[in-house]
Amino acid sequence: MAQKIFAFSIRKDEEPYVKEWANEHPDIDVDYTDKLLTPETAALAKGADGVVVYQQLDYTPDTLQALANEGITKMSLRNVGVDNIDMDKAKELGFEITNVPVYSPNAIAEHAAIQTARILRQTKVMDEKIAKGDLRWAPTIGHEVRDQVIGVVGTGHIGRVYMQIMEGYGAKVIAYDPFENPELKAKGYYVDNLDDLYRQATVISLHVPATKENYHMINADSIAKMRDGVTLVNCSRGALVDTDAVIKALDSGKIFGFVMDTYENEVGIFNANWEGKDFPDARLNDLIHRPNVLVTPHTAFYTTHAVRNMVIKAFDNNIELVKGEKADTPVKVG
Amino acid sequence: MAQKIFAFSIRKDEEPYVKEWANEHPDIDVDYTDKLLTPETAALAKGADGVVVYQQLDYTPDTLQALANEGITKMSLRNVGVDNIDMDKAKELGFEITNVPVYSPNAIAEHAAIQTARILRQTKVMDEKIAKGDLRWAPTIGHEVRDQVIGVVGTGHIGRVYMQIMEGYGAKVIAYDPFENPELKAKGYYVDNLDDLYRQATVISLHVPATKENYHMINADSIAKMRDGVTLVNCSRGALVDTDAVIKALDSGKIFGFVMDTYENEVGIFNANWEGKDFPDARLNDLIHRPNVLVTPHTAFYTTHAVRNMVIKAFDNNIELVKGEKADTPVKVG
Ligand SMILES: NC(=O)c1ccc[n+]([C@@H]2O[C@H](COP(=O)([O-])OP(=O)(O)OC[C@H]3O[C@@H](n4cnc5c(N)ncnc54)[C@H](O)[C@@H]3O)[C@@H](O)[C@H]2O)c1
Ligand SMILES: NC(=O)c1ccc[n+]([C@@H]2O[C@H](COP(=O)([O-])OP(=O)(O)OC[C@H]3O[C@@H](n4cnc5c(N)ncnc54)[C@H](O)[C@@H]3O)[C@@H](O)[C@H]2O)c1
Repeated sequence: MAQKIFAFSIRKDEEPYVKEWANEHPDIDVDYTDKLLTPETAALAKGADGVVVYQQLDYTPDTLQALANEGITKMSLRNVGVDNIDMDKAKELGFEITNVPVYSPNAIAEHAAIQTARILRQTKVMDEKIAKGDLRWAPTIGHEVRDQVIGVVGTGHIGRVYMQIMEGYGAKVIAYDPFENPELKAKGYYVDNLDDLYRQATVISLHVPATKENYHMINADSIAKMRDGVTLVNCSRGALVDTDAVIKALDSGKIFGFVMDTYENEVGIFNANWEGKDFPDARLNDLIHRPNVLVTPHTAFYTTHAVRNMVIKAFDNNIELVKGEKADTPVKVG
Repeated sequence: MAQKIFAFSIRKDEEPYVKEWANEHPDIDVDYTDKLLTPETAALAKGADGVVVYQQLDYTPDTLQALANEGITKMSLRNVGVDNIDMDKAKELGFEITNVPVYSPNAIAEHAAIQTARILRQTKVMDEKIAKGDLRWAPTIGHEVRDQVIGVVGTGHIGRVYMQIMEGYGAKVIAYDPFENPELKAKGYYVDNLDDLYRQATVISLHVPATKENYHMINADSIAKMRDGVTLVNCSRGALVDTDAVIKALDSGKIFGFVMDTYENEVGIFNANWEGKDFPDARLNDLIHRPNVLVTPHTAFYTTHAVRNMVIKAFDNNIELVKGEKADTPVKVG
């Protein structure tokens, strides 16, 4: 009998890639639903050898048990995060789990680059003028990317692509990372410490994970070390930035513009529709409507390239699990 | 007595650069006004040896005569265009004139690149959702620049910078120009003809002058040769594009998105404020409010870098005229 993989919570934009994978694996049965995986929906996977999943909703002990009751313990996430999986239960039931740790650094790097350039160009102000019929150019003048000193904090997968894009514009790029990349080091990108980066950069873009050590690394103290009129870009993690300190610096003009794809209080607010309802966060609402702030709700990753990779890599992982082979990117269970 | 240069219609954003030039030339008297040059204001330049100018308003015979009456016949434009100068009168009065033909190719190339990326990313749709409190990401998915085949028409000053930026994003770049640049040719960028470019490109960006031959080069016929879902970028000249044909293709979905910094009927409409008045062009108004069209009113050039160059180069030219030296970029008078 053919092996079978069942996928949960497949969105419209994921469907083409599920079909692409199925077409390229005619020997495998592939089926899917747009429903989330819950104790009630688990039975939809009946007869499958593995499941492909992606949801914010918790994978509770009940949910995992319901899957195991169908004989399914091979689960492949289409995303990175595993915080919402009850790992104790998963271990007890003998689950094997995979994730997709890297799906498209370019998706995030391009978004950060586009939003950086938009701040410099004052596109939000100009677009609003144009929408209401004011077609005068002055005084909405742009700053060229090539005239900037771009300070990149974190030269991992995403930071490196961002650097390359900014160099394409002709900007000077400097970087800081406690673990220096030898190739970048040889090319002379690194400054010795964050203070040096703050002192030199006209644009500062964060591409580091959030840890206990770097909580609110962008705060009143670090902002004071930066150049007047600096542009700040956070497409990484909300916890890196003391939002109140940034707002003060926006008000004083110390910070020229602010790009935020992540926000320290985003959980429960982003990826929901507040139209016609009370907006749940007055500070965020204020930021959204400032002319020199560009807010996006953690969408930097959201490209066709990334979504395709998330789907294809998750199915690739799952078929390896199903065949009893070593999966490419396994997750430690328990 | 010190030589003197007087500048007309200096905007707020030009002032710092006038002062910068004056500081670097302490031996020259520099003065300026925000008023346009007219028969009435010409006397403001009394005592000057040359004038620095920039206006849409015609330099009429009366205006030129009024300057000549003050003994001033050395005139340096801060812009390129000389169509609004009465050249017969200028010749009769013995005027020497200069312009600034290249002030910042990057200003236009960066703008074209940013707007291209925004179309691909659907930022207009996403920004409008966010502004009204809809923070859901789906279905507003982005396309990555690196996945595109960028077709550049015209590889002059601006086209070349645009190519470099797009390569920084990791896109594949192809180009067409009847006069091939040897360096670009050696690197294999050129396709043999426009049809080849239309067939291959997912993004087409125009960086050519408008001539009789290429009037409406983008029309129903050429659009039919393009790939489905192509993105079209015109930061060059309005006359290159048959706007009605583009609108049809936007309606059918043949064209995914359209960037326009220039418009065939822009004269008298762009760089004016229509807020609260009857908007003078229904077609343009429709384009402005489409989710997949980005209109800007010929502002691609408008950066601090460009404005600085326009001011500094015009003063440099003018002092050369005043000193009886050969100016860098003279204009043929008559
Ligand atoms: N907005 C989004 O949609 C989105 C999507 C994916 C990832 N991200 C964020 O982007 C970040 C970077 O992702 P990546 O794939 O490039 O990660 P990565 O692991 O490849 O690179 C992270 C880099 O940061 C460095 N680093 C760690 N602590 C640092 C510090 N205090 N100062 C400077 N550098 C430090 C590391 O040495 C490493 O080189 C992730 O941590 C995540 O928070 C955001
Ligand atoms: N939007 C703005 O604010 C703004 C500002 C300045 C210039 N522009 C426009 O940008 C255009 C390009 O400027 P530039 O400085 O790069 O000019 P340029 O003279 O340096 O380059 C123009 C190139 O186009 C090529 N060319 C001519 N006809 C062609 C055709 N039919 N097909 C393909 N290539 C052709 C030429 O060989 C040349 O290489 C200008 O003509 C102008 O219309 C727009």
